[in-house]
Amino acid sequence: MKKLLFLILLFAPFCIQAQNNMQPYLSLEDATRISDAAEVKSKAEGWNMVIVVLDAGGHIISLRKMDGVQIGSIDVALGKAKTSVYFKRPTKVFEDMMKGEGGARIATLPNAVAIEGGLPIFKDGIIVGAIGISGASSAQDGVVAAAGLEAY
Amino acid sequence: MKKLLFLILLFAPFCIQAQNNMQPYLSLEDATRISDAAEVKSKAEGWNMVIVVLDAGGHIISLRKMDGVQIGSIDVALGKAKTSVYFKRPTKVFEDMMKGEGGARIATLPNAVAIEGGLPIFKDGIIVGAIGISGASSAQDGVVAAAGLEAY
Amino acid sequence: MKKLLFLILLFAPFCIQAQNNMQPYLSLEDATRISDAAEVKSKAEGWNMVIVVLDAGGHIISLRKMDGVQIGSIDVALGKAKTSVYFKRPTKVFEDMMKGEGGARIATLPNAVAIEGGLPIFKDGIIVGAIGISGASSAQDGVVAAAGLEAY
Amino acid sequence: MKKLLFLILLFAPFCIQAQNNMQPYLSLEDATRISDAAEVKSKAEGWNMVIVVLDAGGHIISLRKMDGVQIGSIDVALGKAKTSVYFKRPTKVFEDMMKGEGGARIATLPNAVAIEGGLPIFKDGIIVGAIGISGASSAQDGVVAAAGLEAY
Repeated sequence: MKKLLFLILLFAPFCIQAQNNMQPYLSLEDATRISDAAEVKSKAEGWNMVIVVLDAGGHIISLRKMDGVQIGSIDVALGKAKTSVYFKRPTKVFEDMMKGEGGARIATLPNAVAIEGGLPIFKDGIIVGAIGISGASSAQDGVVAAAGLEAY
Repeated sequence: MKKLLFLILLFAPFCIQAQNNMQPYLSLEDATRISDAAEVKSKAEGWNMVIVVLDAGGHIISLRKMDGVQIGSIDVALGKAKTSVYFKRPTKVFEDMMKGEGGARIATLPNAVAIEGGLPIFKDGIIVGAIGISGASSAQDGVVAAAGLEAY
Repeated sequence: MKKLLFLILLFAPFCIQAQNNMQPYLSLEDATRISDAAEVKSKAEGWNMVIVVLDAGGHIISLRKMDGVQIGSIDVALGKAKTSVYFKRPTKVFEDMMKGEGGARIATLPNAVAIEGGLPIFKDGIIVGAIGISGASSAQDGVVAAAGLEAY
Repeated sequence: MKKLLFLILLFAPFCIQAQNNMQPYLSLEDATRISDAAEVKSKAEGWNMVIVVLDAGGHIISLRKMDGVQIGSIDVALGKAKTSVYFKRPTKVFEDMMKGEGGARIATLPNAVAIEGGLPIFKDGIIVGAIGISGASSAQDGVVAAAGLEAY
């Protein structure tokens, strides 16, 4: 019974897509709301950050870099968000996979930044984009990404 | 006398920089105000656009992509702004240079997008960044870039 | 009246998108049918070709390279299709823009291959992908691209 | 005696090539048959995948992306197949080498994706190309790659 439910959940997105050949997308309004929430959280914590939102094709909808953030964080935030769109999962999953024997193989995976701070954005089970955060510790980046996602 | 004045004007920026080893920079607040003004103008005209503001190193401070804009406009807007930072001039200058005999040589210039829509941003004669616009005709992109710059 | 109609056509795609935040997409079945039609046409003409179909984000759904085609045609076909997705227009539009004074500026446009053989694919006015063809003369590439598109 | 046999086996491929300066190659028909077999297997298992076949130079002959597969799998499948062509071995060999002390050095090997799912394709001992699969777990990707290869 549990396995059946799992299978239904697994295939649900595909069925929705297949039914009518239509898929949801992220608007600039969505991306701005998500980014605003992330910025509010990072300011509340006293962290300066780069906040990126990508669409389902991995293209930028919104990017903002707070004053004084290291410029390296721009490509890191872009890379984390791209990873989450390209692989439909949080970057932390790859970070965790790199612990333990043989985990370094993940470093050879094309387009994967294996550092917490990237989260995929789903609507009705379909990927519509991702948020990527960089500027503080990776755990802190993850906290801000989650705060952004909550606003969607 | 005229030549002397010219020399003074030419070296003025350098002198300012050299005086105290300080240079002005563009804040996220500046970039947001510039981008907001560009967005207001593009909406008033009924144009959908990508609006980019870069810092003096050519790195992104702010990017927003309005709904429905062709994804190609992201790299075009980035390229126009980069050109204006890298060469401290409007991209239209290069577009004009490409008219007439031998103008195609500009196409071999590294990091130059020779299409109107990119404008450098100066403060007290020092370059602090650039705005890049893409999404409509290049002349229309130029109008929106100018509207953004006016808000600085 | 004509201008009004033009404006309606211009904004129609955006309205459809905005209405329900949903957009159509191209399936592998669609891409295969389009590629098959292109291959049939190229064989009927005795041309060997690379046939590419991309999705709305510029990512490959289908690529096939017929025997004996120059390997350079792989990236050319990919580039033409990418251009048509990124700029929502046939690559021939850019090829034509390069004729006449100042036309070489198009060579500075990021992600643009200005050679006939790339066509965007629309569904209900929304871009869903593109076809790119390379292997024969650019006019012949365009003929095969059109034959592929007809099967959609 | 054993050593002599080894030398014969080692040089056998080279001798075949050297004999008449000819080498076998993979046709689009071959690549399609291999890809069809891989697709049949992946559908039978209920997995959605990207299926790539490259030639002996590492250039794409055939690529197909089933509906709903994460877009990251395109570059991963391409990378796995490229690795198998470039190094004439299954990608799993590199994955295994990464286990144990010092294994992470493989992550510095140019053009190596050290994750199961890439297999080289040989004809009469000569490399003619590779198959690369991505979309499910790496072990499952390997199963589908093997199923494709069996059809050659």
